[in-house]
Amino acid sequence: MIGRLNHVAIVVPDLDAAVKQYRDVLGADVSSPLDLPDHGVTTVFVNLPNTKIELLLPFGENSPIAKFLENNPSGGMHHVCYEVDDILVARDKLIAEGARVLGNGEPKTGAHGKPVLFLHPKDFSGTLVEIEQV
Amino acid sequence: MIGRLNHVAIVVPDLDAAVKQYRDVLGADVSSPLDLPDHGVTTVFVNLPNTKIELLLPFGENSPIAKFLENNPSGGMHHVCYEVDDILVARDKLIAEGARVLGNGEPKTGAHGKPVLFLHPKDFSGTLVEIEQV
Repeated sequence: MIGRLNHVAIVVPDLDAAVKQYRDVLGADVSSPLDLPDHGVTTVFVNLPNTKIELLLPFGENSPIAKFLENNPSGGMHHVCYEVDDILVARDKLIAEGARVLGNGEPKTGAHGKPVLFLHPKDFSGTLVEIEQV
Repeated sequence: MIGRLNHVAIVVPDLDAAVKQYRDVLGADVSSPLDLPDHGVTTVFVNLPNTKIELLLPFGENSPIAKFLENNPSGGMHHVCYEVDDILVARDKLIAEGARVLGNGEPKTGAHGKPVLFLHPKDFSGTLVEIEQV
C-alpha cells in the first residue's frame, strides 16, 4: 500500500543552525524557510536525490510541535511520511487492520497542500507515521 | 556532499510485531530477518520504491541499541543514513566544518558491508547521522 518515503521530518530548536548543518556541513541543497501559520510550523526542505528531509521549527502559539521540542530540547526526528495513492482507501485499510488514525479520522490538508493523516506511534513501534496522498 | 537517503533506522521492541505493522498493515515489501552478531542487531528491511526503512532489534549482549530501547521502550527512530561517494573525504570535510565524528574517527564496516561513520547528534539538531560510502 505505501509507496515512496516522501520525507523525514526533524524538529529543530534553531532553524538557522540547522540550515548551516545541512547546507554547509553536509553540503546538501536546502530551500528557503517557509512560514506555515495554519500548520504552526516554519519549514525548510533538504532536497536529496531520492527524498526530502523536512526541518521544522515551531511557529506562533500552539504549534503542534512545541511539546515535542520541550521534551527534546536539542531537536530530533519527529515523523516519517509515506505516500499513498488514495488516502481514504488507505485509511479504511489501516483501520480494518487495527491501526489508530489520529484526530477525527478525516484527512487534513498537510504542509504540502495534499491530503494527509497521522497514525498513532504506538501502532508503529514508537514512530509517528504520516500518510500523504500524492 | 551527501547524496541519497540510504535508510531510516527504527529500533523496535518486537520484530515480529514490527514486520506485521509494515507488511500487513502498511502493505510494504519486507525482507526476512537477518542476525548480525558482529553489529549486535537483527535487521529487517522495508523496501520502499525510493529508499529503505531498517527495523532494528538488539541481538545478544552489549547491543549498541540496547540503551536506546531502554530509554524508548516502545521503540523509535534511531538514525538516518546518507550516502557519500568517499567516506574519508566526507569525514575530513565534516571535521573541518566542526562536526564531531563518533568513535576513533576511522570508518567501520556497517551492517551493509560498506564503510560507515556516525556523527554526533548534538551537531545535527538532535539526530544521529550515519554516512555510508556506496
